[in-house]
Amino acid sequence: MPALYLFTDFGYDGPYVGLMKAAARRAGLREDRVVDLMHDAPRLRLDAAGLLLARLLPWLPEDAAVAAVVDPGVGTKRRALVARIAGRILVGPDNGLLVPAMKEASSQGLAVSVAEIAWRPAVLSASFHGRDLFVPAAVRALTGRPLATQPLAPADLVGWESPPDPARIIYIDGFGNAMTGLAAAALGDDARLEVAGRTLARARTFADVPEGEPFWYENALGLVEIAVNQGSAAALLGLAIATPVRIR
Amino acid sequence: MPALYLFTDFGYDGPYVGLMKAAARRAGLREDRVVDLMHDAPRLRLDAAGLLLARLLPWLPEDAAVAAVVDPGVGTKRRALVARIAGRILVGPDNGLLVPAMKEASSQGLAVSVAEIAWRPAVLSASFHGRDLFVPAAVRALTGRPLATQPLAPADLVGWESPPDPARIIYIDGFGNAMTGLAAAALGDDARLEVAGRTLARARTFADVPEGEPFWYENALGLVEIAVNQGSAAALLGLAIATPVRIR
Amino acid sequence: MPALYLFTDFGYDGPYVGLMKAAARRAGLREDRVVDLMHDAPRLRLDAAGLLLARLLPWLPEDAAVAAVVDPGVGTKRRALVARIAGRILVGPDNGLLVPAMKEASSQGLAVSVAEIAWRPAVLSASFHGRDLFVPAAVRALTGRPLATQPLAPADLVGWESPPDPARIIYIDGFGNAMTGLAAAALGDDARLEVAGRTLARARTFADVPEGEPFWYENALGLVEIAVNQGSAAALLGLAIATPVRIR
Repeated sequence: MPALYLFTDFGYDGPYVGLMKAAARRAGLREDRVVDLMHDAPRLRLDAAGLLLARLLPWLPEDAAVAAVVDPGVGTKRRALVARIAGRILVGPDNGLLVPAMKEASSQGLAVSVAEIAWRPAVLSASFHGRDLFVPAAVRALTGRPLATQPLAPADLVGWESPPDPARIIYIDGFGNAMTGLAAAALGDDARLEVAGRTLARARTFADVPEGEPFWYENALGLVEIAVNQGSAAALLGLAIATPVRIR
Repeated sequence: MPALYLFTDFGYDGPYVGLMKAAARRAGLREDRVVDLMHDAPRLRLDAAGLLLARLLPWLPEDAAVAAVVDPGVGTKRRALVARIAGRILVGPDNGLLVPAMKEASSQGLAVSVAEIAWRPAVLSASFHGRDLFVPAAVRALTGRPLATQPLAPADLVGWESPPDPARIIYIDGFGNAMTGLAAAALGDDARLEVAGRTLARARTFADVPEGEPFWYENALGLVEIAVNQGSAAALLGLAIATPVRIR
Repeated sequence: MPALYLFTDFGYDGPYVGLMKAAARRAGLREDRVVDLMHDAPRLRLDAAGLLLARLLPWLPEDAAVAAVVDPGVGTKRRALVARIAGRILVGPDNGLLVPAMKEASSQGLAVSVAEIAWRPAVLSASFHGRDLFVPAAVRALTGRPLATQPLAPADLVGWESPPDPARIIYIDGFGNAMTGLAAAALGDDARLEVAGRTLARARTFADVPEGEPFWYENALGLVEIAVNQGSAAALLGLAIATPVRIR
């Protein structure tokens, strides 16, 4: 049985992650087949969260499902979606979160489809659709049970026409390293990054840079990331989620 | 094989959660059958922690076991308990932690029994009975091995005669939302909540309330929860675990 | 199938732990067979991290593998190692991290061997060898697939000749309790601990000591640990990772 990966902004505090695993079990998937991909996706920044999800997807097993729950509109009317991207299943709200992953896959010629989930659980709380809707729906998709889906054209999705600009900070880790949405592979060794009024040179790794100096490097997801050897780039440069960057 | 859920106040820092999973394996349950329900149960507040556990229990699979370890008396004399509530098994210290779950189930007419665990492991540390006693005992209960139990009358349990008042804050999440122990289902749309000198109106969800305004709503556990749209209710109103509330 | 335990300094923030589990699956081990032992091993303090790993090892299942990733030199040249200690497999960088566990096992007469891993994955990032090298290599070791190993003499390992002094603080938990690398079993009830200009008496457990008073006790790993009942020993005494201690 493939695994269900959780991508949320809930954090590890409280019973919320545990209750999603219990919900998976009640829906027919053993708790241990639910994997914590991350629970600190950018809150309330669907552009950054969507880009981050798109960049993580290629690193997951080819048969993985993902329940993506960054959902400031929980409790209001918005569609629930199931997308199929090559062999992977993504379930989440129709608020733009799934758009970058779908666009990226389309641009690479992968098979992409998306549908609205009309299925609803017997009990649906107003505030925790991760537990009540998205996880059970992802389990149903993973196990081939019906979701009462209605096919959608990608252009009908919220945010399809205005995808987020990847030249932004999309994640800042606990050490203050700031990840952008930009792929590094196409950039030369002398490519410079402008951010927050500074121009940063490229380095291969932290050890190649003097302590305290900001630089950019290709991170382990293949993205342009801003860092400071033995320091916090976010603090030094005043970076936040969605801060714009520019390559030149 | 059903899963063993962990409900503790240990936090995720350090090797403690990992060592409990290793202990489960050594006792005969694979690590992956151990699920983190939560590790930030209220410390040193057995009343709040017990109510929270009672409110979470119905959301777990019907055959789940729970090792509940909020145990300020670890290393002193206090009994270890195994309770059976409908199909679920609860293992924990005899300090009042299990009382609300047992009372709640009894009041609903569910089958409830409790016994003292006389079984002890070969090695019992003075400070980590979660690893040494409660997790292995829960595994033994789950797998039908003997625990040398002595049946107890519920009235013999510590705290049975003075169960905690649910009209209190029982959990505050990382965003400052404050959960009470009160069920919301029986309350009308015009029910008002008094807390910290303020009177709060009910809302269905965050999106229905102006930014910065405190309100209460029925949370995803069916409980009365105090929140502020885009803000921290705990900070705004000065709430803490055990702060009293009143419905009128 | 035995489990793979993760011992890292990555923290739970971000997608890093989740990506290591996805990498295990891609390498042939189901995500649920990967167990979080701890992710807050001391950063940049290989002496403390290595001692901590050595002290945790006996508590793991006898057939466990461990991917130990405290690796400030990631991206630079350093060997990757696989050690076999009795039935357990340890994989990690050749930077001294595995030395205390190997020395301890040797001193107990256990079978210990170590080899360099020459196997490399098709894609090796500069900054995340946990995902790209150590986890897949540990999976290969666990599942009996080749790693192109070259046997090493222990004396050839980095740090073998200068193992860390266990009379140091090796971990400080979220409550300010400070663990040393010293075994408590051999010490008498009247053994005193000198640290930070203070002399501390032994207690059996927290409940035996007045509130606010520092003491030492045998913790659940069998080690000398410094604590304060209802307080933070680290804050009260000014302790940090690697602060020296002395028994007299």
